[in-house]
Order: sequence, then C-alpha cells, then structure tokens
Amino acid sequence: MDKEKLANMKFLFDPATVAVIGASPNPNKLGFHVMKSLTQGGYGGQIVPVNPKATEVMGIGCNPSLESYPGRVDLVIVVVPARAVKEVFIQCSKRDVKGIVLITAGFKEIEDPVGTRLHNEIRAIAEQTRIPVIGPNTFGFINFHASLNASFTPEFSLINRGRIALVSQSGGMAHLLGFLALRQDVGFSKIVGIGNRLNVDFPEMVEYLSQDPETKAIALYMEGMDHPRAMIEVAKKYSAIKPMVIYKTGISKVGDQASLSHTGSVAGNYDIYESAFKQAGLIIARSAEQLLDFSKVMAHCSLPRGNGIAILSGQAGPGMAGADVCEREGLNLVSFSKETQQRINELLPPLALRTNPVDMGPAWYDAKAIAGIVEAVMNDENVDAILLYMMFASANMDAVERLSTLLKEWSQRKPLISCLLAPQGIWDSQVEELEQAGALVNLPTPERAASAMAALWRCAATLRKQIT
Amino acid sequence: MDKEKLANMKFLFDPATVAVIGASPNPNKLGFHVMKSLTQGGYGGQIVPVNPKATEVMGIGCNPSLESYPGRVDLVIVVVPARAVKEVFIQCSKRDVKGIVLITAGFKEIEDPVGTRLHNEIRAIAEQTRIPVIGPNTFGFINFHASLNASFTPEFSLINRGRIALVSQSGGMAHLLGFLALRQDVGFSKIVGIGNRLNVDFPEMVEYLSQDPETKAIALYMEGMDHPRAMIEVAKKYSAIKPMVIYKTGISKVGDQASLSHTGSVAGNYDIYESAFKQAGLIIARSAEQLLDFSKVMAHCSLPRGNGIAILSGQAGPGMAGADVCEREGLNLVSFSKETQQRINELLPPLALRTNPVDMGPAWYDAKAIAGIVEAVMNDENVDAILLYMMFASANMDAVERLSTLLKEWSQRKPLISCLLAPQGIWDSQVEELEQAGALVNLPTPERAASAMAALWRCAATLRKQIT
Repeated sequence: MDKEKLANMKFLFDPATVAVIGASPNPNKLGFHVMKSLTQGGYGGQIVPVNPKATEVMGIGCNPSLESYPGRVDLVIVVVPARAVKEVFIQCSKRDVKGIVLITAGFKEIEDPVGTRLHNEIRAIAEQTRIPVIGPNTFGFINFHASLNASFTPEFSLINRGRIALVSQSGGMAHLLGFLALRQDVGFSKIVGIGNRLNVDFPEMVEYLSQDPETKAIALYMEGMDHPRAMIEVAKKYSAIKPMVIYKTGISKVGDQASLSHTGSVAGNYDIYESAFKQAGLIIARSAEQLLDFSKVMAHCSLPRGNGIAILSGQAGPGMAGADVCEREGLNLVSFSKETQQRINELLPPLALRTNPVDMGPAWYDAKAIAGIVEAVMNDENVDAILLYMMFASANMDAVERLSTLLKEWSQRKPLISCLLAPQGIWDSQVEELEQAGALVNLPTPERAASAMAALWRCAATLRKQIT
Repeated sequence: MDKEKLANMKFLFDPATVAVIGASPNPNKLGFHVMKSLTQGGYGGQIVPVNPKATEVMGIGCNPSLESYPGRVDLVIVVVPARAVKEVFIQCSKRDVKGIVLITAGFKEIEDPVGTRLHNEIRAIAEQTRIPVIGPNTFGFINFHASLNASFTPEFSLINRGRIALVSQSGGMAHLLGFLALRQDVGFSKIVGIGNRLNVDFPEMVEYLSQDPETKAIALYMEGMDHPRAMIEVAKKYSAIKPMVIYKTGISKVGDQASLSHTGSVAGNYDIYESAFKQAGLIIARSAEQLLDFSKVMAHCSLPRGNGIAILSGQAGPGMAGADVCEREGLNLVSFSKETQQRINELLPPLALRTNPVDMGPAWYDAKAIAGIVEAVMNDENVDAILLYMMFASANMDAVERLSTLLKEWSQRKPLISCLLAPQGIWDSQVEELEQAGALVNLPTPERAASAMAALWRCAATLRKQIT
C-alpha cells in the first residue's frame, strides 16, 4: 500500500476530529445513530455534525457544510444519499481529510450501472488524494482503544476493549460476532466493516493491522475477493508477524450468487481459497464461533512448542469429548514421563483415569492432590500445552479458587486453555480474574477448547516456520 | 424390559417417599449435598434421611436405618461406601422399595476384582426383586416436573422445566449440558446419570422415556455400550414414536481406553456405531452443543414435510453463512414460486438480495414490508421450513416486536428456527415470549440454527418413514 495512504489510515482510525455528513436529530435516520455512537461511546476528540437543515444534533451545533467548518478534520463519516456523495468527496479532497467512512449504500452492488459509475468516480478522487475509505455500504468501525464508535450501532460500545481486530466484509456478521463476544467476554481492539471496499480491502487492512500495536490477533470474515493474489501475498508476509484467522462463507452455490449481489464480488471455489489461505499462513475457522474462539486464544495464549497435549479434567466425560477432538485435529495426547505418572498415581486412587486424559474427580476434596497433579503435568517435558476442564458440581465449589495461585504463578509458561463451567455467578469472577491475569483462556465447551488448541498449535507452527 | 421393572421405573422417577441412606449434616459429604438438593429443590413428597450417627439433617429427624422407618419408601438414594451397599440392597428388597439411586462408586470400574464381584451380587438382588437401579457411580437424576432433585448437585434445580429428557453415561457431561442449557434457555423433563448401569442401561431408559408424557425428545450421551444389539433394537422401535438424538464420544483411541476405565465398557469402532444408529433412526450429534440444539428443535418445532428451506435474514452475511451449512447438510434452498418472488420484488428495493437467501435489510424501516415478505414466504408451497436471522443494529430495535403477532399467529405451521441476537436485555424477553408461545426456536448463531434445521428434517424423515 502507498505510504501516504498507510499513514492516513492511522489518522482514520485515531482522528482528532470527526465530521458527520448527514448528522441528524431524527431517530429514523442513520445519521442520528452515528451521532449517538460518537457522543455516547466516550470519544474524546472533536465531533462536527454537518447538516444544512439542522441547527444542532445531540447538543452540538451543526455546520451547514464541511466547507463552513473552520478547523481541521481528520475523519469524515458520510451518511447522505448516494447521489450527494461525489460532492462530499470533492470537498474532502480539498480539505486535506485523512480518511472517510462511507456508510451510504447504492454503488457497485446495485443492478443499475449508475452505481458502478459513481463507485469508480469517487474511487478515483480518493485514490488521487490518498484518502483511505472504509465502505461504501458499511456500518462503519469501532476503535475500542480510542473509545471511538464510528458506526451506526451505539451498542458496539458495550463490548470490551481487547486485543483482537475484526475485519468483516459483512455488517451482519460483525454485529453477530460483536454480540457473541459480549456474551463470551471477548475483547476487541477494532471492529471494521469494510463493506464494498472502495479502496480499503482485506490486503490494506491486514497491512495496517499488522503494524497496529493494540492488535495481537487479526480475525477476518470474508465473502468474496476482488484481488485474491494481493490478499495471499499480504497474508504470507504478515502472518509471520501476527496470528490471523479467517472465516470465509459463500461456499455454497447460492452463497456464491448472494456474495456477488451483496458485496459485488464472486465468492469462488472454496477449496482453492482454503488451500491458498493455509499456504499463506492463515488459520481456517469454519463458523462464527470458531472465528471468535480461535482469535481469542491467539490473542491471549502463549504458543506451544509442539502438539503434545495433556487433558486434565475434573470429570471423565468432558475429557473424553476433548480427546476425540484432539485426535481428529492432529493433536497428540502424550504419554506422561515416568516421574509424572508416578506422581499422579500417588495422588489419585486406582479407580480414577490416571493416564492422559486424567480424571481428577476422585481428588476433589483434596486441594493439594489436585494442585500436585496439575503442577506435575505442567512440568512434564513431554507436555507442550494443557487443556483443563472442570464442571461445577457443588461438592467442588472451591475447585477454581484452589488452583488460582498455581495457575497465576505458572502464567502460561505452556499454553492453557480451559473449560470451567458453572451456573452463572458461581465461578464467573474467578475465571475472569484468571483470564485477565493471563493465566488461561476459557471457552464454553470441552470440544471448543480442544479445537481452539489445535488452531493455536497450527498458528504457532506457522509463526515458527516463517521466522526460521 | 420386564413389565414389573418398567412399572417400578415410574415410581423411581415420581416417588411419594425418598430415603437417603447416608444423609449427612457434613458439607464435605455427598450425603449433605443430596439432602440439600431434595429439600431445596421444591420436592413435595416425604424425605427420610437415614444415618445412625446423626439425629437430624436439614431440620429433618434422622432414622438409624431403613428398617426403623415405619412408612412405605418408594425411592432409596444410596451414598454410603461400597462395602455397605449390599446390606442396603438386602433391606430394600425386604421393604418393597420401587427404585434405587446408587451414587456410590467403586464397583465394576475399579481395577480390584472385589468391585466386579460386588457389582454382580447387588445386581442379582435388584434383578430378583425387579428394582431398577440408577447407577452406581452416578450423580443421580432430576425429575423437573416433580421438582425432584435426586442428585448431589442442588444447582440442577436452577434449570428450567421442559420437554427434553437427557440420559448421560457421564456425570461431567450431564453437568456441562445442564449448565449450557441454563445459559441457552433450554428446559428438561428429566436429567438422568446412568453411570455404571447396574440394571438400567440405555435400552431401559429409552423404553421408559418413550412412554413418558412429559418428554417430547430424548437426548443421549454415550461413551461405551455393553449390549449394542439391545440398544439398536430399542432405538429402532421407539425412534418411530419419539425423536432421539445421540452424542457418542470415545471415538479416539485414548477415548476408547478411557471409556473402559471410566464406565467399564469399551467404546468401540465409532463408524460402525454411527451407521447402526442412523439406521435405527437416531439423529447424530457431534458435540455437546449439538446435542442440546438438536433436542431443543425436536422438542419444540413442528416437523417439516421436506428439505425445502427459505432463509430470511435481516442482513446478508448471516444468510450466506446459513446457506453454506444448509447446502453441506443436504437441505435445499428452494426457488420461490413466481407469486412469492413477485411479492418480494415489490417489497424490497433492487439493491437487496431478493432471492433465497433473502436480505431484508433494506426494508428495516418498513414494518409492513418485512411482515409481507415473511408472510409470502410462509405461504409459498415450495417452502417446507424457515430460517429467520436478525442481528440487532439499533436502527432495527423494533424488528422482533413488529414480527411478533405474525409469528405467533403462524405458530409454526411450518417449522421456524431463528437466530435473533442482540446485546443482553434488548430482545431477550421478546424472544423468550415467542419461544414460549411455540412460535419459533431460537439458537445462538446462524450456523447452529441451520445445522439444527438439518437435524429436524432428518428426524421428520425418520418418523415418517417408520410410520408408513
């Protein structure tokens, strides 16, 4: 990407001043919701509503035009109808605007050739002046670290600040992922809806985010691609630097057709994409939940040296479910070293499963025994990573608390993904504390924890291969 | 199953009096937790704690032995050590007890041959007197319709009463599924941990539950099987009457070994089981979440005539994700009839996806248009079932409310599975109301909704095939 455009991207996502062209006091207009997002999201910069027909919006005085505002404007959010957009772009190019969010739809994706012509015209203006444009046909973006909600959905601001950047070709999927994240305590650095990608497509976003210090892992939701080769090249280059996971739909025939209409690009043969993605170091997710799970562990787990896994379970069944997934996904349930096995045999009665996957259930009432098992397995040189499962059962009320110090001190010297599940309000705050301390990443089921472990291992292999 | 034993099963699950052998005032004993479950779970029958060393437990006077209690006892819950269990069984057989829950572990599953001998001895007593026994090595069971929590986990009583019966070979998995259900508003008729299956195994449970009027769908979690042929025969017979879904682990080599130790049975070759299960009319789930999702739709959805699906989505992306799953799972995204397509074209602008999957997004502000589209598709004779997706985006705040009357009146004349997702507290109560009215079943993601639709279609095909 052009250096000037890349430099402008930084202003786009972290602007000192934001103007909203089409700001509105009418709740039936998107310009109302955008203003609500900006003003209620905690943004500390200057907000400049522009609307010739309004005097003020949300208590901020309106400007009749962008021209009439005397100060500098970094980011312009556009919600006026398509026919008025070209004039806005011309004004932006005159005002040294750094970036545009073009929420308006009705360009390349409509059947009418007028849309394509307009698309090309505004694209030419943006490219000439090196203004990166998010959209058209987007909800916008959120930069959680700047408390900047530049979208038409104020509720995005409810989501936690975190380390995952989500780039989505679909607004609906971004909302889905955001609200799933709310329920699963996943935090984001940025959520960006790239929509119909006037001049900021997946390659540009990946390049920018690879250099974004607030982003530890990049999650991509893709339908179709206009420039697959550029995407593969960028992925190859930057997947060595930052973990990236991709979920691509449009696999089915109808999906392919839908993609063409939805965002103006052909989804194409999925198998070809998938093998190219894998070769380029992208980790493949197969559902919205996997996209979240995988990017969560990539953003918060240490990296395993290899695929040698230990499953420590408070009950046998979840351990078996996890073992099935591990085997299917190419992970290796290791045999413990002689010393480790001896230690476990000392601590668990014969009626328990004492080999991997270990059933720690019979030691529930013996906090020292549980901690002893976990510690022995952590230090076993055969073990690269640990899956820790515990289902609440009232007799094990203190189980998480009793492991807390050990887990915090260990601090993922080897990666630790858990499924610690209880009725709401029993273990939640303890698990959250362990997550925030970096002691583990918790996922909702044993199977999802095991799948995420496999993704983490593939990610580690990619990073290592590309570094050496 | 023997008629007398089957008759006794009804008393076991719905007893007038429950005795707890090993009831304890000490929170470090399982006998404490069982008493807590019974007393706090809302059970209306008589509770009889038995413990020669205690005078009372939770305010109820203790009996030194079962013999010393003068009244009739239907259900006996046993939490005393394995060595004391045989004597309890002898007493039970003398007292005309109808059923036993044997929580105690340490029988067939331990390495010591004493365990197997004891197992066989108590089994002989139970079989002779036709007493069905849940366990050994189980947490117990919950009959939600009798508010009877006969388990060592009082928190099971937090779960909603519903129409799904869960039979689990693993206590850990039953706790996992129960606490997942809590978070996903799934309700159960019964949760039963069959543990090491003294004389009540999967076939007996399936036979009993097929005749249980409170159970609409049966969810089975299985590790290994002692009598595969009996299971397949029972499944064949009763899957024509009631929807049944099965999740089996122990697929991996280590899982197989673990199963042998965990519940004393070999898990065996998964592929052989799977094809036998399918032929017997069982629906296959591949994760704990699928087991819940599938049984939820089977318990609450009408049955589709065929596999012709319409996807109506408030945003294009989720519709595409759903379409991919539909195609993979053998569902057919139908072409709408000429009349339906014409109606949709009238109601949606050209910029929208107007064919299946439909993107209703551009009509968000037009409640009549949305309702018009949904109604036209409902009445389309090509359509057998509907997937309805809507992601909250603040501008569509009223979207669920506006469809509410139409959906309730329609009342699943064709099955309707939805993914209606918003931040907590926005749509929750409206969605819950629609679920309770039987208007739809809501699932957490578009992909899971589509997978569940495929399971529902397979279930309908099974029921139809076996009836005709």
